[in-house]
Amino acid sequence: MSEKPTTKGTSGTDEEIEGPNTTRRTFLKGSSAAAGIAALGMEGTKPANANDTDETDDENDGDDGPTNVVLFIGDGQGRAQLDLGRYLKAYREDSETFPLNVADATYNLDRHDAHGSATTFPDDPEEFVADSASTATAIATGHKTYNGAIGGVENDAGEFVPKRTVLEEARDMGYAVGLVTTARMTHATPASFASHVPDRDEEEEIAKQYVRDGGVDVLFGGARSYFLPDGRETDDADLVAEAKRNGYRYLTTESELESLDSAPALGLFSESDHLNYTLDRQDGDDTTQPGLGAMAEKAIDLLEARGGRKGFFLMVEAGRIDHAGHANYPVVAHEQLEADDVVGRLLDYAEDSHGETSVITTADHETGGLSLGSGGPYDVNFDVLDGLEASTDALVPLVEEAESREEVSSIMQEEAGIDLLDTELDELRAYNTPVAEILNHRIRLGWTSTGHTAENVPTFATGPNAEFFDGTVDNTDIAGAIRERLNGN
Amino acid sequence: MSEKPTTKGTSGTDEEIEGPNTTRRTFLKGSSAAAGIAALGMEGTKPANANDTDETDDENDGDDGPTNVVLFIGDGQGRAQLDLGRYLKAYREDSETFPLNVADATYNLDRHDAHGSATTFPDDPEEFVADSASTATAIATGHKTYNGAIGGVENDAGEFVPKRTVLEEARDMGYAVGLVTTARMTHATPASFASHVPDRDEEEEIAKQYVRDGGVDVLFGGARSYFLPDGRETDDADLVAEAKRNGYRYLTTESELESLDSAPALGLFSESDHLNYTLDRQDGDDTTQPGLGAMAEKAIDLLEARGGRKGFFLMVEAGRIDHAGHANYPVVAHEQLEADDVVGRLLDYAEDSHGETSVITTADHETGGLSLGSGGPYDVNFDVLDGLEASTDALVPLVEEAESREEVSSIMQEEAGIDLLDTELDELRAYNTPVAEILNHRIRLGWTSTGHTAENVPTFATGPNAEFFDGTVDNTDIAGAIRERLNGN
Repeated sequence: MSEKPTTKGTSGTDEEIEGPNTTRRTFLKGSSAAAGIAALGMEGTKPANANDTDETDDENDGDDGPTNVVLFIGDGQGRAQLDLGRYLKAYREDSETFPLNVADATYNLDRHDAHGSATTFPDDPEEFVADSASTATAIATGHKTYNGAIGGVENDAGEFVPKRTVLEEARDMGYAVGLVTTARMTHATPASFASHVPDRDEEEEIAKQYVRDGGVDVLFGGARSYFLPDGRETDDADLVAEAKRNGYRYLTTESELESLDSAPALGLFSESDHLNYTLDRQDGDDTTQPGLGAMAEKAIDLLEARGGRKGFFLMVEAGRIDHAGHANYPVVAHEQLEADDVVGRLLDYAEDSHGETSVITTADHETGGLSLGSGGPYDVNFDVLDGLEASTDALVPLVEEAESREEVSSIMQEEAGIDLLDTELDELRAYNTPVAEILNHRIRLGWTSTGHTAENVPTFATGPNAEFFDGTVDNTDIAGAIRERLNGN
Repeated sequence: MSEKPTTKGTSGTDEEIEGPNTTRRTFLKGSSAAAGIAALGMEGTKPANANDTDETDDENDGDDGPTNVVLFIGDGQGRAQLDLGRYLKAYREDSETFPLNVADATYNLDRHDAHGSATTFPDDPEEFVADSASTATAIATGHKTYNGAIGGVENDAGEFVPKRTVLEEARDMGYAVGLVTTARMTHATPASFASHVPDRDEEEEIAKQYVRDGGVDVLFGGARSYFLPDGRETDDADLVAEAKRNGYRYLTTESELESLDSAPALGLFSESDHLNYTLDRQDGDDTTQPGLGAMAEKAIDLLEARGGRKGFFLMVEAGRIDHAGHANYPVVAHEQLEADDVVGRLLDYAEDSHGETSVITTADHETGGLSLGSGGPYDVNFDVLDGLEASTDALVPLVEEAESREEVSSIMQEEAGIDLLDTELDELRAYNTPVAEILNHRIRLGWTSTGHTAENVPTFATGPNAEFFDGTVDNTDIAGAIRERLNGN
């Protein structure tokens, strides 16, 4: 494939979308390979009567209660990002005994029952390193695809072929379904679960498919401009009005989220881009943006009610780990901590819920080539990292608008907690304002890229048959595992 | 601790070495935390009569056969190194379908039953990033310590306090014991299992302790100079002669290794430094250096015979993954593949052996901050990586001695498989000979450091109670797990 396909496939209508891939790859895991395959349904660990429900039933019978599947995706959440969050959390809990206290600090990602990793590479002759569209499509549909593809693959004729997603299957089986993200609602990761376009940049088409074809009960994310006439370039459709006519509640602020009591609901909490980084969301001027945890918990409340005895499927994305990685921003750690907080809430729900709730936690790829420690010295300065009060996004304009060295010095003291050296002040007064470079050097975070990298990503699971994820799996296997759970296996 | 302790402790005599740490940290793993603890002995999965053997018995009784524990340490084997090996192996197996064939390529590290990670940080107020001495000591003794410490910790008075190692305990319980490495025999990782010095640089003292106090049945590694009068600076002890008087077979070449048929044995296969990188070992002038796999298999043969019905403990280190990382050399991939080959042989043995063999595979830390992909572009060029015929160690002298641009061009074509650009030729003719930089750029490997980084390291296990390693553990827990197995639990 020398260029991305330009033939736009017919998308969004279920009857034209191919069914799930029937061949699923499993990695050799010694004596546990057979157990891993068995874990995915051939030998369930559920009570015997659970297997009475076949996939054509609209609701579970018996006393099992609903089946819920929550998929958490940390976009760009590589293994170093995950470790950075673990150690920052331990540092915050007790800086005196840190790092020896790390085993006592509760890092929620460590709470899962199963711990392994997943591949990320696309099916793309041009590129070995994945983008978020190909990986989210692999996870959502079970099909490897080319970078840029949303919810489909390219056939031998160069045409885009939509593929059914686990969300669409769940919806058609009677489950309530939802998508929650801190990125734009139309960004690649959520889009790959409920839309089908050959190019991830077709975000206005993605918005249209959500509203006209999606049937998604809960949509919470950023960037309402893609849904409104004034923001759209391809047409002047008012997708918010259409959604309301279809029965959707529409909301744009944290307080509206708090009082929301029924689905379907479309919550778009920023004007035209992603939600702010969590540090700025908490402290910035715009306090209308909810946290990812609040969005996820509200989504569960609504989906639980709407799914009834059948249950629900929910995808939650921590979308801005990735963006901090692209920019090589130290606030990647704070985004990771928000992700960990959300995972904790999901696991709490799984422990407390009636019925059976599976939580699968993964990432689409690593972003930035992050390392803890860089340049040679054997230290990482968590005190500096913990002293940050604002993201580099928020700091750069302040530094650029400062009218004196003293003012720059004061801003960096107040917002980043560091006393700048004269040489650093010289650098900051130069035109390219290398705030992130100075912070990375002080903290000793290393980065190799402003793009993604190709390492496997950490993958976890809790709930029935979670043990399948103890080991290395292909990211397409995640779709298979979700399908098995949705089918009651 | 503002400086490393200078008070040298009394070391090497068992009665003065403190016993094992009785508190072992375990990470919260949700509902599997209790299972993890139970897995370490309180609820064994062995046949009931296996528990008849208590730790004071010199040999197992009944039909269980011997208990063997093999610990494999990839020095510097971080998660990116591991993934790089996996994908290079898949590329070599079928470059046409790569990377979609990766699930079919047999990567031995994926064969383990349990998959998790381990912490690496030292107990060192000056440094958060670990060195190989503190980590190997943590793994060998169960005690966190300061960077540089070999087999001991520092007490409140600033004195070095030796700690008992799992190898010493195994030896005293009647197990046969061995240490195998591609690094210098006296390097930090093997040293931490059978010697006790406050500073890893005391390699002549380490050699003396091996020979005079160690009782290690098999010692295979590099750098015989530390054992011979001409090579020693602190004294003129002939430790090779002493070892021979103590009954050791002494050997220095691969052919001698092949014909070796009994332990104790001291094999030192290089003059004064580590063994060569595997690419150079296979193809260089010095063909006397064995592969790590041959050393490990011979060690198992000898220890199996010597351990009899009791069994054996063996530590095998792939020591040069770390050195390639420090130098930012792409041959880190080839060292990783040698490591994977050895792990495959160890797992084969565990599957075939009589009795019960545990294989625990881990790393001490990551080295270099490696990433697959760098600088932004979304690709990794495995064809270039696979084309390497020599390490950068071997290439640099050739390039430096070349007398013309044409000669440099020819060397790089033959030994590295790449046609240099004119700009690259200009760079290579400059004084600092950036061979590694050019190769990293061509392959798109990223590095953040010439030192270590602080991420957790991948940890695996196969054998009884392996499931303890499904999750995040402290590196000191590895000593605890080994002790449980040695005690028959």
